[in-house]
Amino acid sequence: MSAARVLVAQGGGPTAVINQSLVGVVLEARRYGHVERIYGARHGVRGVINEDFIDLGQETALHLERVAATPASALGSTRDKPDLAYCQKMLAVLRAHAITHFFYIGGNDSSDTVRIVAEEAAKAGYPLRAIHVPKTIDNDLMGNDHTPGFASAARFVMQAFAGANLDNAALPGIYVAVVMGRHAGFLTAAAAAARTQADDGPHLIYLPERTFEIDKFLADVKAVHARLGRCVVAVSEGIHDASGESIAAKLATTVERDAHGNVQLSGSGALADLLCDEIKAKLGLKRVRGDTFGYLQRSFLGCFSDVDAREAREVGERAVQFALLGERSGSVAIRRSGDYAIDIVLQPLEVVAAKTRVMDDAFISAAANDVTPAFLAYLRPLLGNDVPQAVRLRSVPVAKVLK
Amino acid sequence: MSAARVLVAQGGGPTAVINQSLVGVVLEARRYGHVERIYGARHGVRGVINEDFIDLGQETALHLERVAATPASALGSTRDKPDLAYCQKMLAVLRAHAITHFFYIGGNDSSDTVRIVAEEAAKAGYPLRAIHVPKTIDNDLMGNDHTPGFASAARFVMQAFAGANLDNAALPGIYVAVVMGRHAGFLTAAAAAARTQADDGPHLIYLPERTFEIDKFLADVKAVHARLGRCVVAVSEGIHDASGESIAAKLATTVERDAHGNVQLSGSGALADLLCDEIKAKLGLKRVRGDTFGYLQRSFLGCFSDVDAREAREVGERAVQFALLGERSGSVAIRRSGDYAIDIVLQPLEVVAAKTRVMDDAFISAAANDVTPAFLAYLRPLLGNDVPQAVRLRSVPVAKVLK
Repeated sequence: MSAARVLVAQGGGPTAVINQSLVGVVLEARRYGHVERIYGARHGVRGVINEDFIDLGQETALHLERVAATPASALGSTRDKPDLAYCQKMLAVLRAHAITHFFYIGGNDSSDTVRIVAEEAAKAGYPLRAIHVPKTIDNDLMGNDHTPGFASAARFVMQAFAGANLDNAALPGIYVAVVMGRHAGFLTAAAAAARTQADDGPHLIYLPERTFEIDKFLADVKAVHARLGRCVVAVSEGIHDASGESIAAKLATTVERDAHGNVQLSGSGALADLLCDEIKAKLGLKRVRGDTFGYLQRSFLGCFSDVDAREAREVGERAVQFALLGERSGSVAIRRSGDYAIDIVLQPLEVVAAKTRVMDDAFISAAANDVTPAFLAYLRPLLGNDVPQAVRLRSVPVAKVLK
Repeated sequence: MSAARVLVAQGGGPTAVINQSLVGVVLEARRYGHVERIYGARHGVRGVINEDFIDLGQETALHLERVAATPASALGSTRDKPDLAYCQKMLAVLRAHAITHFFYIGGNDSSDTVRIVAEEAAKAGYPLRAIHVPKTIDNDLMGNDHTPGFASAARFVMQAFAGANLDNAALPGIYVAVVMGRHAGFLTAAAAAARTQADDGPHLIYLPERTFEIDKFLADVKAVHARLGRCVVAVSEGIHDASGESIAAKLATTVERDAHGNVQLSGSGALADLLCDEIKAKLGLKRVRGDTFGYLQRSFLGCFSDVDAREAREVGERAVQFALLGERSGSVAIRRSGDYAIDIVLQPLEVVAAKTRVMDDAFISAAANDVTPAFLAYLRPLLGNDVPQAVRLRSVPVAKVLK
């Protein structure tokens, strides 16, 4: 076999297990005698065009294992979304360093970059294998049952709501928490896994797959409060009105946009605060509190699903096997093959690239303010094997003496 | 020994380990043959005046152990701050139910209630032992080296900042996170434990023990950003200007006050958003993000310090021993007796009641924007024995070919 040189990079938002995929690529590539270099690009595609590489052959295996267990992109990441010229520049750098196998760990934008780079290499007759390794807490990649990173973030959201529900039961009031997810509601929906007893919160869940109507929202909150004396609400940051305008953008005084033209939703508590203000003003309820989970849900140290960590590692390993044993390009994907078991396949980049998967209708309640049992059945095996439990007293009442 | 009847209640904000103290009281009280009833009051002192009791003798030991491992007040809590008339009403209910030993798990306001009830009982010649069992994530109780609940919240804050620092290193920018703590900065200061390498964040820490000057803050952020190309900041919700006015209250359009007359600081992202707006407007920096840890830091399911859990359990047990073996009233306190070892003592209620401990000057840096090594030495043993580690690549650079 002719000499091979591997380059790996990480793009988009960090996750709790993205470094498992990185280390999966590196340790698997080390097994092949004809791989003479394993490089990592710093800060994703930007590191490629800047030739900002590190030598991953010079990391110890034990140290790599510790990095694998650390959240957030160890190589650094970027929000750059390369166009054709950018991708051609990338290819020039790959050729200069004689890179034969390129692995990009990222979401749907990253897979589009891999697609363009692979096409340009083919056009130029340069023998490059380019593989997209899936990663996103949003769980919005086409052709995947679920994506590495989602389950750990889902577990964070579940543990946060389980605790918030207990807190809200101890000191009753209204609690609204905003969860990441611009177009896909999977992560917000994961809040439902926090419920153990019938009256546990979240009592209401609002997803970007459905139109958000403020009057309907207020009526829902009022009804739950009337029944339970309290209400816990999970809201996706991506909720929007019937015209498609984001509720967050509608109410923000200043709007920041990223390189992709998207309105900045994270890194601000505005949406939660606004919804709380509406509840106070229109329903006249007291003790209304809003939280925004923000960056914690994707980067919190020490909260991950063991299933997610294992799968993230495996997609990295399989990516190398597809590229170096199979000499194929494509996008690695997770398919559910049993209850619970997965297959890891390689699908054409076009299936994933720049597309967005959203939640199935079967996962969303008819009233558009909750998930269905089908979603919980889908989610539960992903959360892992040592999920903490919230347990309440059985509370046998004592007869009153005075009253 | 004459028959004894025990009543236990939980007051104030929940913590991750307050149920350990509850279960410590219940299981220890069960060991005494003369204890004929163990009741719990629902929602703190409010449950006492409403005679809203449950029979904790009718909970199984295994179930109680599961409740002990669950965050937030299992009996429910209250923000009521009883005055003399309220306490006299409480005493009437205690007498009606022949309660001989009253345990109230809470912070400095709760200890003041215990003090008044104990005084009223003594005046009335009613043989009541009343014990305050310490609890607060704020760590602000006098006469305690630290308080149960603090270390678990500190660990949450540490893990959150460790992850946020990695996220910020992967996608550089400014990150500001607001931490609970109205008067005492201990919990915000715990962010410092997230640092492993010299350039790790948080790079700046602002505590309520020092005056917050917005110009100084902006200059600090600018200097860190110039040096590292990024900046992670920990800010206490209780920061205030030279006149003592809270920065959050100063900027909020509407201000909510609780029964104690305090401005509502939690349950809103306003302070973080405002500080981010200042940075964007005055420094012209991009990618400025703000998070508010909110209720997660005191209630997140599954994040606790094993040292904290053990000590919370022990103060509950010792409370019963002081009251039932020693026939004493008072406030249980933790004293540090070694590095690391503790004693659990009973101190007079007056030492704790309605007083607030703040951070020692020796724990705060001269520039008032960080903590000292002495604080880290104080904090580290409290965080527990299985603290997750953030590990970065060693990153041996590769020589450029093109440039």
